[in-house]
Amino acid sequence: MATMLSEFSLIDRFFGRRAAAARPSDAGAGTLGIGDDCALLAPRAGEMLAISTDMLVEGRHFLADVDPEALGHKTLAVNLSDLAAMGAQPQAFTLAFSLPKADEAWLAAFSEGLFALAARYGCELIGGDTTGGPLNLCVTVFGSVPPQAALRRDAAQSGDDIWISGTLGDARAGLGVLRGEWPADPADTAAFRRALERPEPRVPLGLALRGIAHAALDLSDGLAGDLLHILERSRMHATVDADAVPRSTALRRLAPEIQQRCTLAGGDDYELCFTAPATARAAVEAAGREAAVPVTRVGTISALPAPDDRPAIDWRDAAGAPLTLTLQGFDHFHAD
Amino acid sequence: MATMLSEFSLIDRFFGRRAAAARPSDAGAGTLGIGDDCALLAPRAGEMLAISTDMLVEGRHFLADVDPEALGHKTLAVNLSDLAAMGAQPQAFTLAFSLPKADEAWLAAFSEGLFALAARYGCELIGGDTTGGPLNLCVTVFGSVPPQAALRRDAAQSGDDIWISGTLGDARAGLGVLRGEWPADPADTAAFRRALERPEPRVPLGLALRGIAHAALDLSDGLAGDLLHILERSRMHATVDADAVPRSTALRRLAPEIQQRCTLAGGDDYELCFTAPATARAAVEAAGREAAVPVTRVGTISALPAPDDRPAIDWRDAAGAPLTLTLQGFDHFHAD
Repeated sequence: MATMLSEFSLIDRFFGRRAAAARPSDAGAGTLGIGDDCALLAPRAGEMLAISTDMLVEGRHFLADVDPEALGHKTLAVNLSDLAAMGAQPQAFTLAFSLPKADEAWLAAFSEGLFALAARYGCELIGGDTTGGPLNLCVTVFGSVPPQAALRRDAAQSGDDIWISGTLGDARAGLGVLRGEWPADPADTAAFRRALERPEPRVPLGLALRGIAHAALDLSDGLAGDLLHILERSRMHATVDADAVPRSTALRRLAPEIQQRCTLAGGDDYELCFTAPATARAAVEAAGREAAVPVTRVGTISALPAPDDRPAIDWRDAAGAPLTLTLQGFDHFHAD
Repeated sequence: MATMLSEFSLIDRFFGRRAAAARPSDAGAGTLGIGDDCALLAPRAGEMLAISTDMLVEGRHFLADVDPEALGHKTLAVNLSDLAAMGAQPQAFTLAFSLPKADEAWLAAFSEGLFALAARYGCELIGGDTTGGPLNLCVTVFGSVPPQAALRRDAAQSGDDIWISGTLGDARAGLGVLRGEWPADPADTAAFRRALERPEPRVPLGLALRGIAHAALDLSDGLAGDLLHILERSRMHATVDADAVPRSTALRRLAPEIQQRCTLAGGDDYELCFTAPATARAAVEAAGREAAVPVTRVGTISALPAPDDRPAIDWRDAAGAPLTLTLQGFDHFHAD
C-alpha cells in the first residue's frame, strides 16, 4: 500500500502530506502512518477496534456532477456513521481509490471535504492506495470501543423503546428533486440537497448512548428495511408509529404520501436507529442534548408472537390504527 | 457495511457463509463478524494491528480474462504480502468490491481462490461491501505484530547485507509472454504465468525474520524502485550485484538483457527485500530454511557519501565492475 506517496505528486500534495506522519513504533497506541508497507494501530487500552468498510461508485452512490468537496465529506461520513452506530470513538481510516485522471481542482476539493470532516472527529488518514480506473472510493475506518459497550444489532430486548435521531427522508426528497420526481421551492431544495450530499455522522450521540442503548444501527437503506436488521438479529418484533417518525419542516411541505415513503424507505439518512429500555427515557433525552441532536421515540420492541415467527414491523398511525404500507419498488440512491 | 449479506443471495452464498460468524463480544481478541455495522478486532496482547489496503482494477492489475480462482488468490495475496513485509501475523481482512453483474461461476471460482489462501494463513473475512459497477476489488488486511519487532522501511543500517527471498522476474516474464514481447516454451510459460497469477505471500519468512532483519519491504514494483524506498526512508546508500539477484531456471533461458530487466524492474514479484547485519547471516539462512524459501544475499547498505546526497543504488556485475542500467520505460503490470 505504498503507492499513495510515490506515484502522483498531486496525490502526495493533497493526501500524503495531510496523512499521519510515521512515528516511532514505540508510541503505544499511536500509528506508523503512510510510507511503510502497513500502518500500525492499536485500540485504547482494554478496548477493541471497530472496523467498517464502504465502497462508493459513481452513478450508484453519487452523481457524476456531484460537488467533489461534498463527495469527500460523504465518503468519510458514511463510514463514520458505522462507527457511530457501534458507539465507537473514531481513530483512523484508510482510503483506496481509482480515478480516471488526476484532476487538480477535483482532488483539491475532494481532499478538502474529506480532511475537514476527519479533523472534526480526530480521525487520521493512515494509509491507502491510488490507481487509474473508473471512479471508485473505498474507505476503511477504525474506531475504539470497550467490547461490552458496543451497540450491537442483536441486543434489542422486549419492552425497549425504538428511537430515531434527527429527521428522516430529506436525502431521498433531495434525490427526488434532482430526478424531477417532485418539485420543491429553492430553500427546501437546498435543505434536501444538503441532507443528501453532506450527512452528519452521529458520532457524539453514539458515544453518549454507551451503557444506555441496547441495540443500534445507522440508517442507510431506509428505516423499514434497516430496522428489520435489528429485529432479525435480535429475534424480536416491532410496533412503529409511522406518523411519529421525525421529519423536517421542509419535508412536511411535500405531499403526505411522499413524506411517508421518504421517511420510511428513503435511504441515505445516516441517522441512528436504536433501542433502549423504557426506564432509560430520561437518559436517552440527556444523551441527545449532550450530542446536540434531537431524539424521537417512534415505537416499541416486543417478543415474537411465536418463536418461529419471522421478525416484522407492525406499522401504526398516530391514532394507533394498523397501517398497510406499500414501500416496495421505492428505490433510493444507496441502492446496494 | 451491512450490505454483503443482504443484497445478493449469491454474495451471501459465496462470501457471507464463509465469513467469521458473529461471536459474543466478550471473546477477547475475537471478532464480531459480518452482520453488524462494524467488525470488532483486537491485536494480540501487547501487540499492534498492522493494516494495509490495496485496490485491484481490471486492465490495470489483471487482465479481463484472468482465471477468477487465481484472481481471488492474488487479491488477498498482495495484501498478505504487505503483512509479511512488516513481520505481522495475519488475523483478518475486509473485502469491498464492485461487480458489473453477479455471475455465479465467476463468484464461485473467485471466492474459492480467496478463501483457500485465507484458510492457509488463518485470516478471517470480517466484513465488506458489495455494489454494482466496473470490476474493482479492495481488500484491507489486518495482522498482529509486537511494535518493536515490526520490520520497517526506515531501519536499514550501514553495513547491513541486502537479501532477497525466492526469485525475481518470473511474473514480468509471464506478462511479456502474454503480451507477445518474447516467446517461451510451454513449460516455462506455465511457470511464468503461475508466478504472475498466483504469488505466494512470504508470511512465514516475515515472521521468522522478526528480531533478525532490520528493514524490509515486499517487491511489487520491481527491485530497483522498491529498494529505493528503504534507502530513502533510512537515508542510506546501497551497492547491489545485479548478477547475484536470484532468478529461476526458466528465466535463465530468456535473453540476458530480458533477464536483467525482469529481475530488476519487473514488478509483481511479491518477494521480500530485507536488510540484516552481517553478523546475522546464519540466522537469516536459518529463517529461510524455517520458512522453506530460499534467501539470497545481493548487496550491502552503506552510509550516504555525504549527508545531503540522494539515496541511490550502485549496480555492479559479478566481477564488481560498475553497471549502468537503463531500466526507465520498462513498464510492468502493477503500474500504479
